[in-house]
Amino acid sequence: MKGVCALSLVVTGSIGIDTIIGPHGTVENVMGGSASYFAAAAGFFCPVRLVAAVGDDWPADHSALLSRFEQIDTAGLEERAGSKTFRWTGKYHEDMNIRETMAVDIGVLAEEIPPVPPAFADSRLVFLANTDPINQLKFAGQFAHADLIVADTMDRWIETQPADLEALLATIHGLVINDSEAAMLVPEAANTIVAAKAIQRRYDLGFVVVKKGEHGAILVHRDGLAVLPSYPADQVIDPTGAGDTFAGGFMGYLACSAGDYSVETLQRAMAYGTVVASFTIESFSLDRLAGLTRQEIDDRLAEMARIVRISMPAAAEA
Amino acid sequence: MKGVCALSLVVTGSIGIDTIIGPHGTVENVMGGSASYFAAAAGFFCPVRLVAAVGDDWPADHSALLSRFEQIDTAGLEERAGSKTFRWTGKYHEDMNIRETMAVDIGVLAEEIPPVPPAFADSRLVFLANTDPINQLKFAGQFAHADLIVADTMDRWIETQPADLEALLATIHGLVINDSEAAMLVPEAANTIVAAKAIQRRYDLGFVVVKKGEHGAILVHRDGLAVLPSYPADQVIDPTGAGDTFAGGFMGYLACSAGDYSVETLQRAMAYGTVVASFTIESFSLDRLAGLTRQEIDDRLAEMARIVRISMPAAAEA
Repeated sequence: MKGVCALSLVVTGSIGIDTIIGPHGTVENVMGGSASYFAAAAGFFCPVRLVAAVGDDWPADHSALLSRFEQIDTAGLEERAGSKTFRWTGKYHEDMNIRETMAVDIGVLAEEIPPVPPAFADSRLVFLANTDPINQLKFAGQFAHADLIVADTMDRWIETQPADLEALLATIHGLVINDSEAAMLVPEAANTIVAAKAIQRRYDLGFVVVKKGEHGAILVHRDGLAVLPSYPADQVIDPTGAGDTFAGGFMGYLACSAGDYSVETLQRAMAYGTVVASFTIESFSLDRLAGLTRQEIDDRLAEMARIVRISMPAAAEA
Repeated sequence: MKGVCALSLVVTGSIGIDTIIGPHGTVENVMGGSASYFAAAAGFFCPVRLVAAVGDDWPADHSALLSRFEQIDTAGLEERAGSKTFRWTGKYHEDMNIRETMAVDIGVLAEEIPPVPPAFADSRLVFLANTDPINQLKFAGQFAHADLIVADTMDRWIETQPADLEALLATIHGLVINDSEAAMLVPEAANTIVAAKAIQRRYDLGFVVVKKGEHGAILVHRDGLAVLPSYPADQVIDPTGAGDTFAGGFMGYLACSAGDYSVETLQRAMAYGTVVASFTIESFSLDRLAGLTRQEIDDRLAEMARIVRISMPAAAEA
């Protein structure tokens, strides 16, 4: 079944051509990028509007793969003549929590951001997948009707453009980041919870979600907390895109929530994000998601609910 | 309220005098040891029989502190004349996941194990807190009526006495260890879940619980899985004994379960262990536990249940 989507969702970020080297093999020139992973995941819940640019080297195969995700509206995908697509080569160690960037070619990401199609201007939920915070801000400014703007970022921007990132954080409603990034933003924090609480307060955000990879995710919301472990995966083939698809499942579910951004709704959205990410890592690139069904997602959510349940004893319930 | 305890629980392990240096201060010559932490925690759920030895340097203050835990039966606590109590000095870094042993004096732990009082011989649940696996085996062998023998261990025994540890693992029903220890036992495992599954199968254990500190705990049971995050603590004053009190809450709850060692019961036991451990780290040594009530434990369990709940949407429940 498809989710009933009350609110329109738009995403911008990178679309790329990845080469991934890891203990389970190497794949070359596969589809990658924060916005493509996000959109593929969000599409299991609601239609998703994609705004991104690629170069004239963008393979037809990748367009074909994107079109398999029927709920992605690619009207905002610009194939820019004379430009090169963003390319990234990464290597995972035996401990797949350790990732090394072997090569990166920013390409079209260094140029002007692509235009927002007029039909997308009424979007209510905006996700700013990881990219330059200046571009994230420019993009966010184009949605006058947005009632939920959420961003991701990365170590690079925290280090090199702290002022731009501050401006971004003062504008958005929610942040979805990694634990290492939370620690960079609040170096004095003793742990991830403390860091997330400090970020939420400092920028008066509605919420901060911190992704901890195999250790799950935490939500610090203006009105309360939620914590979730990750799905206990036996095998990780390729962790690339896990965080972006977590965010995609999270925002996709929120787009179906009719403007309810309570702790309870975000907690469930986080559970959906966790489940979608757990499928992403089962294959390289978007391969697993391309064959995934909403029923498989809901079945695994039910499994997760059993696995993490704390059933209350009668004495404590009273 | 006190738990109704269907089955008798006995623990052996170390009782020590600790000096703890950390970012929140230093305490000298406080009560420590795996068995004391375990027994204090288990006592919130059921009576617990303690078998351990200290030297003639054992401070009267520490006896007084132990006696504040009314459910600990200290008939098996031997004050051995001419021997020295186990002493440990540890230092925590700013990142409190990093602990350094500054000094250790094994003392009485290097001698013969203390005798089991005849009144303890009918114990049904046996917990072998961390100590030399030879002593753990000797101790376990004295309980003919035991239907659940569970052990902890540490890196030291994995490295220096692998054969003794193998013999122990072939004897017990359940294992409660840290993630770093699980990784040492199964170095080829890609992650903690895989390592825990391998240990459960290799030794045909009823279950393996892996403690991941601030990242929670996982249960690999013969009949299924459970995963729990840790309680989202704002401040950690002293993590010493967190793992032992986790095990104490876990086993204490199981002693009240009338011989039901199903996944569901162990999942709830793990939640209780998580909650007790979250109190332990709020103060140095056993200070917080000494003032703790069962009601506070149950209240925090209810809070945990809210924080980690995955509420199922109607579509996925159908």
